[in-house]
Amino acid sequence: MGEFSFIQWIRERQKRRKDVIVGIGDDCAAINVSSYKLCLITTDMLVDGTHFDLEKCTVRDVGRKAIACSISDVAAMGCQATVAVVSICFPDHTTEKFAQELYKGIWSIADKYDIEIAGGDIISGHSPLCINVTMLGRDEGLKPVRRSGARVGDMILVTGTLGGSLLGKHLRFEPRLKEGLILNKNFTIHAMIDISDGLTADLNHILEESRVGAILYEDQIPVSEAAVKMAEKSENTPLYHALSDGEDYELLFTLSKGQAKKAMASHFFDRGMISCIGEITRGRGIQMKFLDGKTRRIKPQGYEHLKP
Amino acid sequence: MGEFSFIQWIRERQKRRKDVIVGIGDDCAAINVSSYKLCLITTDMLVDGTHFDLEKCTVRDVGRKAIACSISDVAAMGCQATVAVVSICFPDHTTEKFAQELYKGIWSIADKYDIEIAGGDIISGHSPLCINVTMLGRDEGLKPVRRSGARVGDMILVTGTLGGSLLGKHLRFEPRLKEGLILNKNFTIHAMIDISDGLTADLNHILEESRVGAILYEDQIPVSEAAVKMAEKSENTPLYHALSDGEDYELLFTLSKGQAKKAMASHFFDRGMISCIGEITRGRGIQMKFLDGKTRRIKPQGYEHLKP
Repeated sequence: MGEFSFIQWIRERQKRRKDVIVGIGDDCAAINVSSYKLCLITTDMLVDGTHFDLEKCTVRDVGRKAIACSISDVAAMGCQATVAVVSICFPDHTTEKFAQELYKGIWSIADKYDIEIAGGDIISGHSPLCINVTMLGRDEGLKPVRRSGARVGDMILVTGTLGGSLLGKHLRFEPRLKEGLILNKNFTIHAMIDISDGLTADLNHILEESRVGAILYEDQIPVSEAAVKMAEKSENTPLYHALSDGEDYELLFTLSKGQAKKAMASHFFDRGMISCIGEITRGRGIQMKFLDGKTRRIKPQGYEHLKP
Repeated sequence: MGEFSFIQWIRERQKRRKDVIVGIGDDCAAINVSSYKLCLITTDMLVDGTHFDLEKCTVRDVGRKAIACSISDVAAMGCQATVAVVSICFPDHTTEKFAQELYKGIWSIADKYDIEIAGGDIISGHSPLCINVTMLGRDEGLKPVRRSGARVGDMILVTGTLGGSLLGKHLRFEPRLKEGLILNKNFTIHAMIDISDGLTADLNHILEESRVGAILYEDQIPVSEAAVKMAEKSENTPLYHALSDGEDYELLFTLSKGQAKKAMASHFFDRGMISCIGEITRGRGIQMKFLDGKTRRIKPQGYEHLKP
């Protein structure tokens, strides 16, 4: 397989959007942004051995995950994902079939969300498989929701259930794009983030950017079945996994008590789709009200790169 | 060094543009694109051992090159580079100083061209240093110049001199952003590309996209001093290096004979800054008129990834 013949193979199969004026095959792609006020942009790099393990998943899973992670970032701003560019470093001696399978994974989710892969870069190196996705998004006439807007007295809500994503969800999660847009369109969301590092770690990002603290209620944390399963094998509790495991790609957001009540009661979300797990407080850091009635500080735990 | 403290270090030093509404530190960056009709986007991945060699260059060189390559792609569309996002996979045990030096290289050229690094991703892995830059560009009210517009009878022009970039230019080249914009604003450029794979290889991209052929004149090829030096050590001629070496990042473009004459005579370019090296023909492939007066077909030669 050569770089150019592979690019040709991709080009022939790529679904096109009307607003992508120049797609794959030129020095740049060109997108008609006259319907945008703001253009959102996010970039995510995934490398074999850190974000996935090709001995435990298929290369198609990898392609799917790379796109889904970036969609999730646009979802966390409450905006619409539109166009992506994808760079791939293939290890030496990669076969054509392997490369094509990666792209089939990419398309399996990009097509579903009507995202055009408008360009990219295909290289090779003495390195593990590495894939980088940059995703563009459109504001849809809405204000992008930042991490920094949480206010004292806000309720803290989360979509879905948490923990144990390593058992499968980290590969097969559905990015909460629809939910992010519904939230941003119909409620006044003060702050939002997607849970990639872990609930407490990502909550901490909101707290630091907003210069506030939080209290969580143990009995309200939506612990997933996977977290329970993980705890059977690990030395930790299901709660620990729900608080600390990364890559659930659920949305974590804050809004006023009144808005939170409306959101919890709204017809937009199925029962259990969103949970109210805590409250924004004046003091810094995270506290938790445990089932025993006691309130203690907890440390944000989660994944961080480059730590020794 | 931790991921978050390094991101904080970057954030404090990043120069801001007014049109970047949300910069580093959120799930996405947000750019005010109300002055854009088209948004250009290009992405480039560079990996140690393939695009640079940390035993032969500094990590600051790497940061500079990564940004410069992407600027060059926007230049090749005749548009203006504006905002970038940067993903980096650091090898395990990377020091803080090394990571900071990389960013100093990034800023050394981004600041010069008023490009804001509006976001990114910092990861680590059991892998060589890998850096991905996605660059956005603005159309500036101009039509982006594609590869596919070359017409029979067009003259083929190139900026600068060619060959031997491995002796240093591949790290220190100045992207032809200003020249690309001047060309697009003042002349009717039919097709343009930047020379990253090599003159004949990149010319071939234009020819294939435009479904035309070309004839080059040996005596008009602007052979660089570096190509001459390379030839002293290699078994090839300086001409061979000028035709085949990659990473000169000069602009290769076609325009009508009349427009070419105007461009060659214009005050926009210093003497020798642009050369007319050939002509677009009806037949496919590339021919060359050699100094001996004979015309022969030549094969596009240049760098291609993934070739066995």
